[in-house]
Amino acid sequence: MLTVSAYAATAADAPLEKTTIERRDLGPLDVLIEIKYAGICHSDIHTARNEWGGTRYPVVPGHEIAGIVTEVGADVTRHEVGDRVGVGCFVDSCGACGPCEAGEEQYCANRVTATYNSVGKDGKVTQGGYSTHIVVTESFVVSIPDGLDLAAATPLLCAGITLYSPLRHWNAGPGKKVAIVGMGGLGHVGVKIAHAMGAEVTVLSQSLSKQEDGLRFGADHYHATADPAVFKQLRSTFDLILNTVSVNLDIDAYLGTLALDGTLVLLGLPEKPISVRGFSLAGNRRSLAGSNVGGLRETQEMLDFCAEHGIVSEIELISADRINEAYERVLRSDVRYRFVIDAATF
Amino acid sequence: MLTVSAYAATAADAPLEKTTIERRDLGPLDVLIEIKYAGICHSDIHTARNEWGGTRYPVVPGHEIAGIVTEVGADVTRHEVGDRVGVGCFVDSCGACGPCEAGEEQYCANRVTATYNSVGKDGKVTQGGYSTHIVVTESFVVSIPDGLDLAAATPLLCAGITLYSPLRHWNAGPGKKVAIVGMGGLGHVGVKIAHAMGAEVTVLSQSLSKQEDGLRFGADHYHATADPAVFKQLRSTFDLILNTVSVNLDIDAYLGTLALDGTLVLLGLPEKPISVRGFSLAGNRRSLAGSNVGGLRETQEMLDFCAEHGIVSEIELISADRINEAYERVLRSDVRYRFVIDAATF
Repeated sequence: MLTVSAYAATAADAPLEKTTIERRDLGPLDVLIEIKYAGICHSDIHTARNEWGGTRYPVVPGHEIAGIVTEVGADVTRHEVGDRVGVGCFVDSCGACGPCEAGEEQYCANRVTATYNSVGKDGKVTQGGYSTHIVVTESFVVSIPDGLDLAAATPLLCAGITLYSPLRHWNAGPGKKVAIVGMGGLGHVGVKIAHAMGAEVTVLSQSLSKQEDGLRFGADHYHATADPAVFKQLRSTFDLILNTVSVNLDIDAYLGTLALDGTLVLLGLPEKPISVRGFSLAGNRRSLAGSNVGGLRETQEMLDFCAEHGIVSEIELISADRINEAYERVLRSDVRYRFVIDAATF
Repeated sequence: MLTVSAYAATAADAPLEKTTIERRDLGPLDVLIEIKYAGICHSDIHTARNEWGGTRYPVVPGHEIAGIVTEVGADVTRHEVGDRVGVGCFVDSCGACGPCEAGEEQYCANRVTATYNSVGKDGKVTQGGYSTHIVVTESFVVSIPDGLDLAAATPLLCAGITLYSPLRHWNAGPGKKVAIVGMGGLGHVGVKIAHAMGAEVTVLSQSLSKQEDGLRFGADHYHATADPAVFKQLRSTFDLILNTVSVNLDIDAYLGTLALDGTLVLLGLPEKPISVRGFSLAGNRRSLAGSNVGGLRETQEMLDFCAEHGIVSEIELISADRINEAYERVLRSDVRYRFVIDAATF
């Protein structure tokens, strides 16, 4: 057992505090990673504060993890000591169901083992990336290409794949009109990736405050949704809308901007149920869909794609003692665009 | 102008009564049809009773129309006097927008002219099929193949195409598991068509009261949704669910029965908004979609497919003076499976 430093929440209303946790001894297929950076995702806050229910305390959040391999198990073939690697939202799956066999482990019929707050096959609760080290089975560890800055690549492990996967699945590319709702940690990476795929990209944000950034990241159009006239103007326009906002929006209004056979994909999951009118879907044969990160193969593909196109997240690098302040700022959308914690400070 | 007999509702709370209406003089591209049969669709009731709002009284419902051509305009080439023909849910569209050019007139960006309660290009309110004759532009009139019984084929013009189009669009066929929710006028035709396409068909009905019929129509499985255990048993099963029920169901429960990348399509449109949890969609990358009848080309394709496979609706033939009683029975689901009115009695 390896005892390592970490930051954990001990209760829904408690701030995260420094602590130690134990990592398992290396099995033959395990990789020991010295974590260099851990991104802060809105899901971390939902879990730390038990907003989705089911949080097991103490919980160490963090599922955007980048680091260096420092030790490998006897049978490991995919990674070597010294490799730059990443870990995303899950660290195990059943490996035998239809989705797992299709390389879509994120939809594992027997539920993936999430990177934190999940019970692994060994019966222990997983603890995430706000820590100095982590032990993960090699097949759930991806390689981070040399061309990518390690700190700025960290959010790609969740935010990047969360946008990349639906963009690929719903065929974003030349001739397709894609809208990204929300210009936060997820949205701004989505703009970069959708643009690199060749789609015509529109940002739908509450205000125009981030318009300059959006256009710089590759958006072709930028609209403030606070103006209801925008929805009329954009009626029946988009082939694909990726909604990264996790509060309840007027989904019918957004559905109205989908062209024939268009799809609105929910990526940020609101706590409350969504209300949608049947007529909003029947017109233009529209779809409302969900998508949940991506599989291992696709995550590696995404990292390679980002390296090829020079795409990373815009980040604000912080020390661990600023996590609680950062959480508050995430909730105020006061970050451009993703907090990454320097793991040397855990 | 041709003055013809019809049945109309004069107010939301008034029964339908015998009246006369006028049909336009034949234009060069018009076809005069002597109506033989008119089906009763739930939409007729919604409109007659102004349940969707916007009903213009008096209104003659009816958008499942089968008859014989008795006169054609000077430039008509598609139909001849004596032809067996049908008219469905709309009688005109702009013809110039993307959907119209794609042969998906039902999604016309400038709105189709519905068969009744719609304002046509001549500025007049359209009146539907509960009548002895109707005048329709030839391109909105389909041919009813000789092999089909004219009365029993009548409901195919709305119920048939409403099911056929999404089954085709979402690729129902061999190796696909399709569920039909509701064994009414729409659902029973859906079972027949999905079976003929080669899909594995499951009926999800409130009770098992129509199970024998369902299996006879081609269903492979039949479940009573009143038993909550059914939803657990069927978890992550279906590739496609067609929901023909127009009351608000527990959509999350049905979504849970969709396999990876499965789609639940709403065909019956409830008056109230639908409530759906984001998590229900994110799991298995599920979609909730809408679909609205089909285009002219596809309606003809559907009729030809039905002729090839010997598919018609199960009907109860009634005289016009029983329309109001039939409406009450439709609301009680007390019809196996579609009322068709003998137009000789209008």
